[in-house]
Amino acid sequence: MTDQSDALDRAALEARGITGWPYGLEDRVRFYEIDLVRHVNNISFLRWFEVLRVRYFLDYGLSDYSHSEADPQLVVRHQTTDFLAPMHMDQRYVVAGRITLLKPTSFVLAGAVYADGVLHAQGETVVISLEQDGKSRRPHKPDAVRRIIERDDPEVQT
Amino acid sequence: MTDQSDALDRAALEARGITGWPYGLEDRVRFYEIDLVRHVNNISFLRWFEVLRVRYFLDYGLSDYSHSEADPQLVVRHQTTDFLAPMHMDQRYVVAGRITLLKPTSFVLAGAVYADGVLHAQGETVVISLEQDGKSRRPHKPDAVRRIIERDDPEVQT
Amino acid sequence: MTDQSDALDRAALEARGITGWPYGLEDRVRFYEIDLVRHVNNISFLRWFEVLRVRYFLDYGLSDYSHSEADPQLVVRHQTTDFLAPMHMDQRYVVAGRITLLKPTSFVLAGAVYADGVLHAQGETVVISLEQDGKSRRPHKPDAVRRIIERDDPEVQT
Amino acid sequence: MTDQSDALDRAALEARGITGWPYGLEDRVRFYEIDLVRHVNNISFLRWFEVLRVRYFLDYGLSDYSHSEADPQLVVRHQTTDFLAPMHMDQRYVVAGRITLLKPTSFVLAGAVYADGVLHAQGETVVISLEQDGKSRRPHKPDAVRRIIERDDPEVQT
Repeated sequence: MTDQSDALDRAALEARGITGWPYGLEDRVRFYEIDLVRHVNNISFLRWFEVLRVRYFLDYGLSDYSHSEADPQLVVRHQTTDFLAPMHMDQRYVVAGRITLLKPTSFVLAGAVYADGVLHAQGETVVISLEQDGKSRRPHKPDAVRRIIERDDPEVQT
Repeated sequence: MTDQSDALDRAALEARGITGWPYGLEDRVRFYEIDLVRHVNNISFLRWFEVLRVRYFLDYGLSDYSHSEADPQLVVRHQTTDFLAPMHMDQRYVVAGRITLLKPTSFVLAGAVYADGVLHAQGETVVISLEQDGKSRRPHKPDAVRRIIERDDPEVQT
Repeated sequence: MTDQSDALDRAALEARGITGWPYGLEDRVRFYEIDLVRHVNNISFLRWFEVLRVRYFLDYGLSDYSHSEADPQLVVRHQTTDFLAPMHMDQRYVVAGRITLLKPTSFVLAGAVYADGVLHAQGETVVISLEQDGKSRRPHKPDAVRRIIERDDPEVQT
Repeated sequence: MTDQSDALDRAALEARGITGWPYGLEDRVRFYEIDLVRHVNNISFLRWFEVLRVRYFLDYGLSDYSHSEADPQLVVRHQTTDFLAPMHMDQRYVVAGRITLLKPTSFVLAGAVYADGVLHAQGETVVISLEQDGKSRRPHKPDAVRRIIERDDPEVQT
């Protein structure tokens, strides 16, 4: 199992003044995330949401990225992002995530980037769960569903 | 002025079976745009929209990226993307763009990715025009406005 | 088989004033390859060498990237690069490659980047050929060896 | 001044079993650093060396990346890397650096990547110091020279 000891849970996020999120990661801006406008490039925020998403999937047990028949393919179908404030080189930030809507073979994962106590970007990612054939829908693993409901308190549609 | 001779105009796009778009670029998938799932990574589509956007801004004269007082800062405020079909290594594609809504100090740029005659991704980017202070709004350059209206036929709000 | 119709052979390269290379690709600098110093980032050159290398491997038949037992794993073991001149946004360039030394289970691939008739970067990559176990050495495919000798005229060590 | 509190000094590195290095950073492999071969892509190692280098320059006072007349342009002229062992998703690592040769207007920065107590990659980067015109050589700042000699114990050529 992947070591998740550097992930932040609800209590750790609240200790950093970030409320309403059950899962997060802490990091800082790297040189290659800045573009020639000298701010963090928009796409770097998407990279952070991707890093968060992969770690979340592993941690909650939604996927082990094994590509075996016992594991789903989780595919991003739709993504929306608000870029609210520029960020700069070496700035520390927290990227947080929470499943807000859970359906049998899909979900909506909300995300947010906080730095210096201020929301800098937010977004939503619609993810669908497929079999390894990339076509048929596949229900989520029961243990993952249990964890999502317990930790994220999403709207559940059956 | 940047050489734009490899950009596709409306006629060149229609010759490739892609209608409704005034501006496009042709390219093919690179090795580093594939992720471990062996498909084009979602973020690569965003990179293509970015490449298209920067070329569009230069070509239409919206910005010369000089960061001089005579030039605006064009800032992405909101972005939404639909990922409709997976793409693979070395696949050829066209990324196309069109301003669909033009306001005095902002606009909506629509984008689409076509490959093998099929729409693979589409999205919208909301861009605002700022002075170099990054705060005050700045009207678009009149020549750029003229070109956008002429080539893209957007909804115009004044 | 991958469509290689946009690859440049020795004659096409010579027509562009670039001599001594049997294989190349033409492209131009993208926005995301520039860093905050407003030049092409060093690592972008390495990306171009990678794109060239993958296309070369496919074209010469060294690997089909299938990860099947019938195909080798080609692993970069050593890389050296000289960065000779800065490059800028949208600049056109040719990246060229040639195997200069061929051994039974490894080779040296030289590379160069030309823009505006001037050499801007050059380098060498040492690649070893492994079985899919990632451990035992695996001889190159005979057809690929034949093409390399015919097109690249390398030093051959047996 | 950039917060360098997460940088590792000689003692912190030795506590992790890594000897001979005065400066390092700790991190773990991200999803986007893996390529379709399912290992860390070669270029990701170069990214880590770049992150290390920028932080080192800021921390030792070689450059503040202000692009003002009071600051040099530090330009990578040559780079060599050995890739010694594959790395995988989420693996923790330390990237370490040390100036091994110091000349009045250039230096050699050695780097290494350690994971699970094993050296996975190593390399050298030759950097030259230029004025903002990008042409004339510029001597290093005296305070940076003092720190390099004190912390890194390089060979010094005058």
